Amino acid sequence: MTHFTKPTPNEIINAHLGGKLSTGLTVDLESSRDLSISYTPGVADICRLIATAPDRAASLTWAHRMVAVVSDGSAVLGLGDIGPRASLPVMEGKSALFKRFGGLDSVPLVLDTQDVDAIVETLVRLRPSFGAVNLEDISAPRCFELEQRLIDALDCPVMHDDQHGTAIVLLAALKGGCAVLGRALDGLRVVISGAGAAGVACARILLRAGVSDLVVVDSQGIIGSDRGGIKGSLAAVSNPRGVRGGIGAAIHDADVFVGLSGATLPDGLVAMMAPEAMVFALSNPDPEVTPEVAARSASIVATGRSDYPNQINNVLAFPGVFRGALDAGARTISESMKLAAADAIFRVAEENLSPTRIVPDPFDPRVAPAVAAAVAAAATATASNPQRLVG
Amino acid sequence: MTHFTKPTPNEIINAHLGGKLSTGLTVDLESSRDLSISYTPGVADICRLIATAPDRAASLTWAHRMVAVVSDGSAVLGLGDIGPRASLPVMEGKSALFKRFGGLDSVPLVLDTQDVDAIVETLVRLRPSFGAVNLEDISAPRCFELEQRLIDALDCPVMHDDQHGTAIVLLAALKGGCAVLGRALDGLRVVISGAGAAGVACARILLRAGVSDLVVVDSQGIIGSDRGGIKGSLAAVSNPRGVRGGIGAAIHDADVFVGLSGATLPDGLVAMMAPEAMVFALSNPDPEVTPEVAARSASIVATGRSDYPNQINNVLAFPGVFRGALDAGARTISESMKLAAADAIFRVAEENLSPTRIVPDPFDPRVAPAVAAAVAAAATATASNPQRLVG
Repeated sequence: MTHFTKPTPNEIINAHLGGKLSTGLTVDLESSRDLSISYTPGVADICRLIATAPDRAASLTWAHRMVAVVSDGSAVLGLGDIGPRASLPVMEGKSALFKRFGGLDSVPLVLDTQDVDAIVETLVRLRPSFGAVNLEDISAPRCFELEQRLIDALDCPVMHDDQHGTAIVLLAALKGGCAVLGRALDGLRVVISGAGAAGVACARILLRAGVSDLVVVDSQGIIGSDRGGIKGSLAAVSNPRGVRGGIGAAIHDADVFVGLSGATLPDGLVAMMAPEAMVFALSNPDPEVTPEVAARSASIVATGRSDYPNQINNVLAFPGVFRGALDAGARTISESMKLAAADAIFRVAEENLSPTRIVPDPFDPRVAPAVAAAVAAAATATASNPQRLVG
Repeated sequence: MTHFTKPTPNEIINAHLGGKLSTGLTVDLESSRDLSISYTPGVADICRLIATAPDRAASLTWAHRMVAVVSDGSAVLGLGDIGPRASLPVMEGKSALFKRFGGLDSVPLVLDTQDVDAIVETLVRLRPSFGAVNLEDISAPRCFELEQRLIDALDCPVMHDDQHGTAIVLLAALKGGCAVLGRALDGLRVVISGAGAAGVACARILLRAGVSDLVVVDSQGIIGSDRGGIKGSLAAVSNPRGVRGGIGAAIHDADVFVGLSGATLPDGLVAMMAPEAMVFALSNPDPEVTPEVAARSASIVATGRSDYPNQINNVLAFPGVFRGALDAGARTISESMKLAAADAIFRVAEENLSPTRIVPDPFDPRVAPAVAAAVAAAATATASNPQRLVG
């Protein structure tokens, strides 16, 4: 278990003074000769090159490997719709993590509109300025439409991290848990509580990875075919035993609970799960069930918190996913690239698995390079038959 | 005269590989504790602060002091309408200069549209992402409307550098030349060749600074009241002697020639100027008249080139102008701030004036701080009675 002195409020404010990002130069600008190379008249040579051969922009500008971290501030952490300006500290942090873990330049672009058409239009206009888009903290169900519209409109990698980053790391952790317990994915009964951005993406990736018995529950109960939209499409591929009711009915004899709802799991429900159960209580900062309570009956417990073991942290995924996609020159982040990312995270953890270590530490330096290499390989393997993100 | 070995084409390409900019972190991200301060859960404290007190974003994010370098690629250097992607190397260079000389973070935003409405709309949506806008390489006459519309729409400093950066440095240089020759601005006959972005802005700043006899010439001849739009409004305040004809008529007995057109000055015209003439042949890379030819009859010769004396380089102005405006929390860059910037540049040069040193060297470390201080003081002086940019 990770322990550290809790930061004080003043310490947190001081760390944020002036923001957390900066820009820098990768060229010398110390003499008139330097200016004549990187600015006029030398830069005109480079402009002419790109004007006649636009593909040269990939190697001769920074934009091709710059990740725009885009948010409208509509679903920021657990704080909700606090707007773009108040979301900026999260986006700066995300951009800083892209640099720290993925070696990628990154700039937050926060938008003073929550209109999907307007956001798409804005990013299409800005397309020459960046090389990839990380969508962040955008509320459901708008996030599903926005991501798909941007994937259609932009010829560069686009990923909503709240969906797919979470899904990738959850799958890696589930693989780790299965390896510890000697179980297979397709033999598991899995319950997901929550059908927002992360819940939907986790359901989809688990189904693709081989989970065959999945039940999704939201505040209205187990999702069935009477639901509309994206939840209705989930119903069509989940709940194969036709369970009815709420979380109590769903969790009975389940092997895996995945909490992504923020709703508290009522006392005693973990005890109703099958033997050797796995509990992923991922809501932050308050897990659906405290790890101490969950551990009374479950064999493996994971949370989103850094002060408990088995932290399901998106930082294990997104830096390597984008790095690998950009390294490979991929135009989209396909399902096979996401599965490859989850597998790469699991492979790093596999070398030293235990019930309290089903995923690597966020600071394990092997993770991002392994993810990037796996994602790039998957991108290249499917390049002749590009995959599209599908519902 | 500055001399250096001319860079080779390969040297220029190598300097541009991977682009000229990068992003960096201003916080440590080396431990779970660091993450808990700069990312979750600590960052939520900062988001909540800004959500309840939006003014706190100024000190707790990077955006407030980040300059967006915005272009549509419609008038790039002397290359013309080469588009946003091919303009990026210039914008990266500009962002690098903001950092190097002004200590300001800066990011290029190049737009795949040349529609003024669309550009304004895009920057309004992105408003929470930046603290100031440097417009760059946008064609005339669109640039005049775009700048004014953005000044109206955005509550932050906006300046089209091709207009005002050039104008500020030209005025500083003219003051330097006058000091060398013992002349006063209001006794000069000034001819400006070119009525594009830079020509119009130079005409306006010279009139505001006290020049009273100004003639503007474009490819159709001396601008008179028969012209429409912005040129017509220039006619109303220029050409007090009612001179008719072209550049030959205009330059006869003139004290100052300012070339901003790219058009070659016909042989012999400099010789028609008044004694002790000043020639500012600012087109790049080919001045309207070669400095060697101009020097045969003119007392002071300046160009935009780094390989001749008296380089009129915008880098003397824009880093300090934006730095001063942001330091003062100014919402606009007023005419008095521009005049203060020109005067500050002149004051640095004044300590060591000569006919071949009417402006400071671009690398003189005193310039940007002096400009920033003067601009901030001018902003503060007019804060109770904010000035607007007017035509």
